[in-house]
Amino acid sequence: MIPLRMIRRMGRCNKLSRGLSYRSPPLVSLDLPDDWSSNSNFTHSHSPPIHKCSNNESARIIDGRSAAEEIKSSIAIEVSRMKESIGKVPGLAVILVGQRRDSHAYVRNKTMACHEVGFRFSIAELPESCTEEEVCDALSTYNKDASIHGILVQLPLPQHIDEGKILNVLSLEKDVDGFHPLNIGNLAIQGREPLFIPCTPKGCIELLLRSDVEIAGKRAVVIGRSNIVGLPSFLLLQRHHATVSIVHALSENPEIIAREADILVAAAGVPNLVRGSWLKPGAVVLDVGINPIEDPESEHGYRLIGDVCFEEAIKTASAITPVPGGVGPMTVAMLLLNTLEAAKRALGFT
Amino acid sequence: MIPLRMIRRMGRCNKLSRGLSYRSPPLVSLDLPDDWSSNSNFTHSHSPPIHKCSNNESARIIDGRSAAEEIKSSIAIEVSRMKESIGKVPGLAVILVGQRRDSHAYVRNKTMACHEVGFRFSIAELPESCTEEEVCDALSTYNKDASIHGILVQLPLPQHIDEGKILNVLSLEKDVDGFHPLNIGNLAIQGREPLFIPCTPKGCIELLLRSDVEIAGKRAVVIGRSNIVGLPSFLLLQRHHATVSIVHALSENPEIIAREADILVAAAGVPNLVRGSWLKPGAVVLDVGINPIEDPESEHGYRLIGDVCFEEAIKTASAITPVPGGVGPMTVAMLLLNTLEAAKRALGFT
Repeated sequence: MIPLRMIRRMGRCNKLSRGLSYRSPPLVSLDLPDDWSSNSNFTHSHSPPIHKCSNNESARIIDGRSAAEEIKSSIAIEVSRMKESIGKVPGLAVILVGQRRDSHAYVRNKTMACHEVGFRFSIAELPESCTEEEVCDALSTYNKDASIHGILVQLPLPQHIDEGKILNVLSLEKDVDGFHPLNIGNLAIQGREPLFIPCTPKGCIELLLRSDVEIAGKRAVVIGRSNIVGLPSFLLLQRHHATVSIVHALSENPEIIAREADILVAAAGVPNLVRGSWLKPGAVVLDVGINPIEDPESEHGYRLIGDVCFEEAIKTASAITPVPGGVGPMTVAMLLLNTLEAAKRALGFT
Repeated sequence: MIPLRMIRRMGRCNKLSRGLSYRSPPLVSLDLPDDWSSNSNFTHSHSPPIHKCSNNESARIIDGRSAAEEIKSSIAIEVSRMKESIGKVPGLAVILVGQRRDSHAYVRNKTMACHEVGFRFSIAELPESCTEEEVCDALSTYNKDASIHGILVQLPLPQHIDEGKILNVLSLEKDVDGFHPLNIGNLAIQGREPLFIPCTPKGCIELLLRSDVEIAGKRAVVIGRSNIVGLPSFLLLQRHHATVSIVHALSENPEIIAREADILVAAAGVPNLVRGSWLKPGAVVLDVGINPIEDPESEHGYRLIGDVCFEEAIKTASAITPVPGGVGPMTVAMLLLNTLEAAKRALGFT
C-alpha cells in the first residue's frame, strides 16, 4: 500500500503545482487499496490466536439465520400469490466471472435461496480471461430479458475488467445490489429514496430494528469503507439518524474510535481485527466479515470467522451477530427482497 | 421538529407491522428537518452573547478572501486565453425564485464574481408564487443554451416546489453545484470521480490544502448534515482519507464528539453553536455558517456571524476561518472554477 508519508508528499506536490491550475487533486488519484496489515496504527496480531470459548459470555446472540428464514418464508408466500395472480415469478440473474472460491460459494448460496422462495434463476458464467465487452454483452442480454427483474454482477471482477464501466451498463431498475452511483447518491441525499438499498447494510439495519436496538442519536462506527458495505452502511445509519463515523485502514487510533460506538459495524475483511478492548461495554456488534482461516479439525480444512474476535467481544458487547449465521444470511434475504420489489415494480403487482 | 421519542415510536410501529411486509421503513419517511434549537442535547445559549475580542488570541486566521482572489485572478487569465483562442467565454446561469434576502445577497455575490472573471452571466428571476413547471421551463431553456455551461438553482426553493424534481431536470453536464444524485453518488464511491464537487466542501478542502493541514488519517467532524454542505463535506473529507464523523441535531453529546476533531467543519446554520469548549486544542476550524444577527451599531442593523463562537475558538484552535471572509468567498471561487471546467469540457478547450 501507499504509506501515509507518500500521501502527504502527493498532497504537497499538488500544492506546489497549484499556482498554475488551481485544481484540487483528482479524487481518483487519491484512491488507495485499504490495506490494514501494513498500518502501524493497528496493534492487532496478524495471525490472531484461535480463541477458546470462556464461561463469561454475556452478549445476546443476534440470530441472522432465523431472521433470514422468516423473511424468506414471507417472500415465498408473496411469490405464490404473484404466480397465482398474474402467472409470473421474480427472476434473478447472476454474472459470475472466473474461479474465485469465495465468489462461487456466495453464488451457490444465492442460487439455493432463489430456489427456496420460488424465484426464476439464471447464471452467466464467464472465464477469468473474458473481455469487458463479453461481460457487458451478458449484462445487456439480461437487461432486455423481461423474465429477469434483478441482476447482480458478483464482485470482485478480475483486475483487467473495470467494475465501474460494467455497473454503468446495468439497468438501474434491475440493480438489486444497489451499487449504481445514482442509487448510492439517492441513498446519501435526504429527501430521496434509492430504488434499491445495498443488501448487507440493509440486512444490518433490519437486524437492529428486529432486535429493538435504538439507532437515532446513537454513536455508530463503521470499520471499513468499501463501496459495497462500509460506505453504504455509513449512509444508511446516517439516514436512520445515528451519529456515524467511518474508520479505515489509514485511521489513527482506530480502537479508540471503535470504543465510542453504541453500534459497531465491522466490515474490514480482516479476521479478528476488532478485539474485546475495542468495544464499549454494552455495544451492539454487527460482524460483516467472513474470513476463511485454516482449521485442520474442520471438514474442509478451514472455517469461517468474522472481523470481530467473538470470544472476547461476547464478554463486553450487549448483543452480537455470529459468523457464520449473522449478517451473511441476512444479505442473501435482502437480495431476495430487493428482487421481489424489482419484480413487483416492473410487473405493476401490488 | 419531531422529538426523539416520536422517532422511536415510529420505529416500533414499523416493527409491529413488519410481520406482513418485511420492509424497512422508507427512508424518506425518516427524514426530519434538523432543528437544533429544540434538542436538549445542546447546551448552547439560544441568544449567544456578542463576545468582545480578548487578548489571548492564538489561532492562525485562514484568509479565504485572499485565497479566493488568487483563484479568481487565475480563472480570469484562463478566460482571456479561451476568448483569444476560440472566441468564447464560460457562461453561468442562475435561477432565483422569490424574495429571500439571503438568496438575493448570494446571487449578487455570484453575479459580481462572474463579471470580475469575464464570464457571461444570465439570471431567470421568478416570483415566489411560480409553479414547478415554470422553474422547469426556465431550466430547460438554459439546458439547451450552448452559451451557458453552468446552471445553478438558488436554494432553498419555496416549499411548494419539489427541489428533487427540479434538480432531476438539470443537465448533468451543467450541474456546477454538484447536487445531482449521480454527482453525489460518484463523490461517495471510491474509484469514481463526479463531474462537479459541491462548491462549499471543495472550498473547504482547498483551504486545508493551501494551509498545509494534513487530512489523511486525521479525525474530522462535520457538524450539520445538509445535502449541500454537511453530507458532501463528509464524503469529500473521507475521499481524502480523513476519519470522518457527522454530528447533527439528533446527536447525543455533540460537544464531546466535536472535541475529538483535528479538523472541524461547522455547517449547522446556528449562530455560535460551537463554543470554545467544543474544540480540541490545536484543531483546525472551518466555519461555514453565515448567520445574520441584529447589531444596532452596524450600518444595516445586522452583522454576519458564523456557527463557531470565534472569540472563544481563537484561543483553542490552531487555525480558523473568519466569518465573513473565510469559507464564503471560497464557495463563490469554486463555483467559478466548476463553471470554467464545465465550459472547457463542453468546448473541448484544454
